[in-house]
Amino acid sequence: MSKSKQIYMFAEGKADMKKLLGGKGANLADMTRLGLPVPPGFIITTESCSDYYRHGEVITGELKQVVFQALAQLEQQTGKVFGGEETPLLLSVRSGAYYSMPGMMDTILNLGLNDRTVEGLARQTGNRRFALDCYRRFLQMYSDVVLKIGRYHFERVLDNLKKTYGAASTQDLPEEGWEKVLQRFKDIVEKEAPGGFPQDPYRQLIEAMRAVFASWNNDRAVVYRKLNRIPDDLGTAVNIQTMGFGNMGEDSGTGVAFTRNPSTGEKKLYGEFLFDAQGEDVVAGSRTPLPISVLQDKNPQVYGQFTLLCDILEKHYGDMQDIEFTIEKGVLYILQTRTGKRTAGAAIKIAVDLVGEGKSSKEEALLRIDPAQLVQLLHRRIDLSQTPEAMAKGLPASPGAASGKVVFDADAAEDKGQEGQKVILVRSETTPDDIHGIVAAQGVLTSRGGVTSHAAVVARGMGKPCITGCDALRIDPRGAFFQVGDRVINEGDVITIDGTSGNVYAGEVPLIPPLLSSEFKQLLCWADEVRTLQVRANADTLKDARKAREFGAEGIGLCRTEHMFMETERLPLVQEMILAETVEERAAALNRLLPIQQADFELIFREMAGFPVNIRLLDPPLHEFLPDKEELLVQVACLKERDERGEELQSKERLLTKLRSLSEQNPMLGHRGCRIGLVYPEIYRMQVRAICQAVVSLQQETITVKPEIMIPLVGHFRELEIMREIVLEEASRVKEETAARFDFTVGTMIELPRACVTAGEIARYADFFSFGTNDLTQTTFGFSRDDAEGKFLPFYVQNKILPENPFIVLDREGVGSLMNQAVRAGRSEKPTLKAGICGEHGGDPGSIEFCHRIGLDYVSCSPFRVPIARLAAAQAALGKRSEQEL
Amino acid sequence: MSKSKQIYMFAEGKADMKKLLGGKGANLADMTRLGLPVPPGFIITTESCSDYYRHGEVITGELKQVVFQALAQLEQQTGKVFGGEETPLLLSVRSGAYYSMPGMMDTILNLGLNDRTVEGLARQTGNRRFALDCYRRFLQMYSDVVLKIGRYHFERVLDNLKKTYGAASTQDLPEEGWEKVLQRFKDIVEKEAPGGFPQDPYRQLIEAMRAVFASWNNDRAVVYRKLNRIPDDLGTAVNIQTMGFGNMGEDSGTGVAFTRNPSTGEKKLYGEFLFDAQGEDVVAGSRTPLPISVLQDKNPQVYGQFTLLCDILEKHYGDMQDIEFTIEKGVLYILQTRTGKRTAGAAIKIAVDLVGEGKSSKEEALLRIDPAQLVQLLHRRIDLSQTPEAMAKGLPASPGAASGKVVFDADAAEDKGQEGQKVILVRSETTPDDIHGIVAAQGVLTSRGGVTSHAAVVARGMGKPCITGCDALRIDPRGAFFQVGDRVINEGDVITIDGTSGNVYAGEVPLIPPLLSSEFKQLLCWADEVRTLQVRANADTLKDARKAREFGAEGIGLCRTEHMFMETERLPLVQEMILAETVEERAAALNRLLPIQQADFELIFREMAGFPVNIRLLDPPLHEFLPDKEELLVQVACLKERDERGEELQSKERLLTKLRSLSEQNPMLGHRGCRIGLVYPEIYRMQVRAICQAVVSLQQETITVKPEIMIPLVGHFRELEIMREIVLEEASRVKEETAARFDFTVGTMIELPRACVTAGEIARYADFFSFGTNDLTQTTFGFSRDDAEGKFLPFYVQNKILPENPFIVLDREGVGSLMNQAVRAGRSEKPTLKAGICGEHGGDPGSIEFCHRIGLDYVSCSPFRVPIARLAAAQAALGKRSEQEL
Repeated sequence: MSKSKQIYMFAEGKADMKKLLGGKGANLADMTRLGLPVPPGFIITTESCSDYYRHGEVITGELKQVVFQALAQLEQQTGKVFGGEETPLLLSVRSGAYYSMPGMMDTILNLGLNDRTVEGLARQTGNRRFALDCYRRFLQMYSDVVLKIGRYHFERVLDNLKKTYGAASTQDLPEEGWEKVLQRFKDIVEKEAPGGFPQDPYRQLIEAMRAVFASWNNDRAVVYRKLNRIPDDLGTAVNIQTMGFGNMGEDSGTGVAFTRNPSTGEKKLYGEFLFDAQGEDVVAGSRTPLPISVLQDKNPQVYGQFTLLCDILEKHYGDMQDIEFTIEKGVLYILQTRTGKRTAGAAIKIAVDLVGEGKSSKEEALLRIDPAQLVQLLHRRIDLSQTPEAMAKGLPASPGAASGKVVFDADAAEDKGQEGQKVILVRSETTPDDIHGIVAAQGVLTSRGGVTSHAAVVARGMGKPCITGCDALRIDPRGAFFQVGDRVINEGDVITIDGTSGNVYAGEVPLIPPLLSSEFKQLLCWADEVRTLQVRANADTLKDARKAREFGAEGIGLCRTEHMFMETERLPLVQEMILAETVEERAAALNRLLPIQQADFELIFREMAGFPVNIRLLDPPLHEFLPDKEELLVQVACLKERDERGEELQSKERLLTKLRSLSEQNPMLGHRGCRIGLVYPEIYRMQVRAICQAVVSLQQETITVKPEIMIPLVGHFRELEIMREIVLEEASRVKEETAARFDFTVGTMIELPRACVTAGEIARYADFFSFGTNDLTQTTFGFSRDDAEGKFLPFYVQNKILPENPFIVLDREGVGSLMNQAVRAGRSEKPTLKAGICGEHGGDPGSIEFCHRIGLDYVSCSPFRVPIARLAAAQAALGKRSEQEL
Repeated sequence: MSKSKQIYMFAEGKADMKKLLGGKGANLADMTRLGLPVPPGFIITTESCSDYYRHGEVITGELKQVVFQALAQLEQQTGKVFGGEETPLLLSVRSGAYYSMPGMMDTILNLGLNDRTVEGLARQTGNRRFALDCYRRFLQMYSDVVLKIGRYHFERVLDNLKKTYGAASTQDLPEEGWEKVLQRFKDIVEKEAPGGFPQDPYRQLIEAMRAVFASWNNDRAVVYRKLNRIPDDLGTAVNIQTMGFGNMGEDSGTGVAFTRNPSTGEKKLYGEFLFDAQGEDVVAGSRTPLPISVLQDKNPQVYGQFTLLCDILEKHYGDMQDIEFTIEKGVLYILQTRTGKRTAGAAIKIAVDLVGEGKSSKEEALLRIDPAQLVQLLHRRIDLSQTPEAMAKGLPASPGAASGKVVFDADAAEDKGQEGQKVILVRSETTPDDIHGIVAAQGVLTSRGGVTSHAAVVARGMGKPCITGCDALRIDPRGAFFQVGDRVINEGDVITIDGTSGNVYAGEVPLIPPLLSSEFKQLLCWADEVRTLQVRANADTLKDARKAREFGAEGIGLCRTEHMFMETERLPLVQEMILAETVEERAAALNRLLPIQQADFELIFREMAGFPVNIRLLDPPLHEFLPDKEELLVQVACLKERDERGEELQSKERLLTKLRSLSEQNPMLGHRGCRIGLVYPEIYRMQVRAICQAVVSLQQETITVKPEIMIPLVGHFRELEIMREIVLEEASRVKEETAARFDFTVGTMIELPRACVTAGEIARYADFFSFGTNDLTQTTFGFSRDDAEGKFLPFYVQNKILPENPFIVLDREGVGSLMNQAVRAGRSEKPTLKAGICGEHGGDPGSIEFCHRIGLDYVSCSPFRVPIARLAAAQAALGKRSEQEL
């Protein structure tokens, strides 16, 4: 038996008791303490709900006893009597969990009515129609929530009677009609659940409590919690409150209002109101609610009171509120207040405005915005108010939305692109051969591949929308169409893709451009004052670098050189280099790549003048630059089958042989990263030379360059020791040749568990560590991201085997623990060691908080996430500060 | 300038100064202290050699000074004068490193001779022929070692003069001939290196020292060190010793002897001897040495002295010795002694015999055998005395040797096998379809794949010899032949493969059966008394289990269930299960697999009665049980090209679709291990049921079964928590159905870095941890073993980027550190946690020592390595003890 207090009168509760009283209850208690007009009531705690489940879904005698005691207190407070025939006390019984789960759980109003008390209410109020309305509402809700009788039974009765009496709405029925409604409702209950409706108000109350407890586990609530990652064991509180009646005539009513516009953030009351109605009418849609401004016209006095209350509540909670209220014969009651949900744009405007109005501090403003929400504002996006139904859904591989005509190959994309047409490249998957098509397209849609597939990586790099793994698509490139179910989309048809959600739409869907309001800039400015983490961007191209600076990146944390290798004009040179059979042939190809790479670096360095640029030397396995093996295999088989044994077959067979010798069972764990640099040092030498020559060339323009040269995939200190030697040697040669002086640093990506475990040794040869948490997550978990995300990972997350997708939210216990170990060991060997993160987690707010905590110097993320990271870094700094203060 | 002592007189050195004095020097010093007949001398330390390299390959004045001082002492001791014309002191100058590097570095004898001292020597000895012989030997060796003049110059002169004088050997030349030899030798030196030969003995000595220091880095020595993993920075000592002359006539001579037979271990002097000769004659091959027994006949007195010395040295060093000696006019001198190299068989016999003779303790015997060497004795092997040249070399994938007729497909192998023929299955690579062929074959040879390829894994499982990745093979299965270079081997031709070395031989090569001598058994018996680590075997079949018991395994540490799935008659059922489109279809296939699995387990449990059997539930990705995708792709392409669009195409396309949906970018990191058990719990349930029913069935025969159920690839405690629940549930069902009672444990393989890092949480749900160090090494390093071993890993080891192949020798700093972390965390959560290792490292002696050190309870290895592991475990226990004693 639980010994803790199971019931709190509103006057006993406090705002910080949300866990115990639920959000609604805690705020009702808080407002009661403030002296605001809240109908009196009490709260049954969430712990009682847990007890209920622990005790085999039984309401204990003990609980009943304290509820009845609280009820007696209510009777005293209100002067009404529960079940009394003269002044009957009516109650609302509502759920209220720690996390708001709007509409997910059940509510019963007007509880306490029966065949006798309804007449008492009629007498007391002198309004029999009102009393009957209350009774039929109660019957209807009780039947729904407690007895589980389908609503349509009752709705049909109401519809029929409205027709019979020619009434536009239920409220327009004559008293005689109400009598009939009630009689027929009772008939329904008698038929569907014989003896189910108790005349005894106490039994009504117990059954209603039981129903609210049970609603914690109704299907809707369970699904909602799963979707929103809310723990299943919290339970719901039950709020039992004296009714305020909005349905006592035209001087009464009920409404819901936001203190500011939740879409735009504009400081103007925003809400809906119904005269002569109870709460559920506003939501139910049977009557169309009026804008709140109508109340201003009809009852300026009450409206005035309401706006004052809104202001008080905003000031008190320091944030925009979402308020339910009722007016009973001209008297205003607040039934609920909570922080209102809002769009990202509104969130920012409100936060900044509140600071201006003195209702909140800058720190509060910074802490109030959910950084993840900002992603909406940083890409073109679907106009949610006008969205048609999605045709298919794939993996959200690169955020943002785009419309265009469907094309099925890269050449067509390029042709149409040059004609100025907007196209979406649709393929089963993309290869390096498709780069020019991706460049020309507005976005990419593939039926296969995960969020690290070629298409995804390239599109993200270019900041283009991309959806991958959309397996509902059946693409027939020869027929130049694709199908989704029975629907056929031909080449040239327009589709819209939303890479933020993964939705594919037929036709053109209106898009909203990215919003960078002055308030947004203001907020980021405040964030920059507070944060201690540096924020950099991952950028491989001039365009990315420019976008990064525009969004406030303080340098580049990861410049991948492989994308430079993949661009159309270079790919043949790269392939030549790979297929070279002698060192001389390879040297020749590399010599031709050198000036191209140098030019790439010059562009990026110029854009990032004065800021550090971290360049990762070539990382992917070489076979990624060659054509697809399966296709080639089929081509060779076909040529042989046709007995065409000419030169084409020979050259394809040669290529196939090379591909076979390069191809790997597990390329993720294969010959890549510094393993390439060690076996083919000439490739890395060329890249180092290109970097150094670019530095020298920009020095002549008096542009300051701060290059950081990063060796990928180091697992053993010897790898870095040797590579560092090679880098220093090549740089010295350039210095000698040019008689220039320049500084740079050499470090490594920490992306293997072994690198973390032996970080002390590695630090001896590193000026910096950059955590590559994508690969580190793959190797720590033993997950191939490409495979896992298409296969078992969704199952894992859905079935709560893992709390989150660890590729999105950093796994602190595993990967994070290794990172922490590495930072400690690295710094203890070399206190000046710079440490950052350049995996995708560098743009995830929760992960940024962790990076701050373990003492990283910077995070680096996609340019589009830089503002998110700036805010998250500020929040991390504030969180830390407040932790220290506590 | 180095302050430490650079020179040790023999009487100053000690046996434990090998690092400083080299092996040869330390033993010479030691023997001198013992009072044995060693010609006096001194040692220049290995540190001086390092100094020499540090100082730019210069012999410092300081070093010269101390050498000359030591020389003065020698003069006093011997009463001879270096460079003296009356009693000239002659020296041998020999290298001597810490690790014995026989024949790799240089030696100069008779140093100190010049045109004047040679006459003094002649006078002093009254033997001018002898003096001239010494001088020509010195000229020849000095020219070779210091002046680098090709030996053939000198050999030609000797040959010509032998012809002229009709002399059978150089020793038979008349004095006049010797004069000519000397003159012509001087002419050669004058021509090839004018002024190169110094008459000054002091200069001779300095140049000889320089040459010995330099010989540390000659090509032979560098290659030898690389092959034997000897560090490059140790340097060599220089031994400068008074000459003992074996070339003073028939009462003189020189020889090399082992105190026991190094091939068989027999306790009988074994060696070679030459009368009237110096050391190099025995090695050079210009004269054929005589067996040492000849000495017994010719000079029984000296022979008697020598056997006594041998006995003293054996007793002193507690081991069989390899001794160089010289007899100068009937007086015996020992020039060198060292522990003699021997075969594995001899090693065991000698060790055990020495204990019997009271020359060594059991502990010393155990510590003396290199466990790795035992592998020779545990498989059939090539008779090294008769080995022809290998035709090709691949990866040594499964040890042992076998001969048989070449067949190119599994069906042919099975057919011929049933006819009683011995066959070797030769394929580019094998798939599960080939299992019946592997079963029927004596061994497997593939041109592709690494040492964890299908062929390798299966062959090792079956204990059959296998060579993989033998890329010199060009196989034409249609033509029924393969080529190596120009050589063609047709189907039916006999070849021999040696899976221990990777060598492929044409024809049948004599093989030696495994040797399990009584001494071997005795040694293992002693090992068992000492060791604290339990030794188990990895065994999937009855045959393996039987072999495991035979070799003394105390249970099974890893019984993989996938090989049971792959056997010919089951594979179709397994495929049916995988291709099932409904749960019912899958259930039906599983129901038919159940009795088969149960029977498998019964066989193994019966064999292992009373011992624990650790069964790993299904681990590999499901696509491993389906046909090869590439082949299917080509087949489909060909059918389409031929426009054969019938049923065959349809069914193949269906299969291809399934394969595509199952195929993965990185199967090693894909949907396997418990990820299969979580998504398809019915598969694991069937396996658990099969285990439990087998236990119940054997209980009826009163056989004790100790099953351990192992969940593979756990990375997050939730995975184990859920799987454990399923296992317990299924076991309870069997208990209920059968009313039987039985115990079992549930644990997990620790094979992911995350499992190590979060081992504390995981231990809550585990009765045991079994380290799967193969996969743990792959994920910790980010190495795909299949890819790495064929590509960059050999490069890494050769270039000393990694000290060893971490798949063979456990990487203590990385993988080992994670294991240690896991054991600590696991035991601190659950002190009773049992911990073992079942990766291939479980059979590697060095790794076993590490396992002992971090407190594992057992190691598990292939049945054939069980004796090795027993010995290694004993050594680990002894090592620990002696560490504690120190």
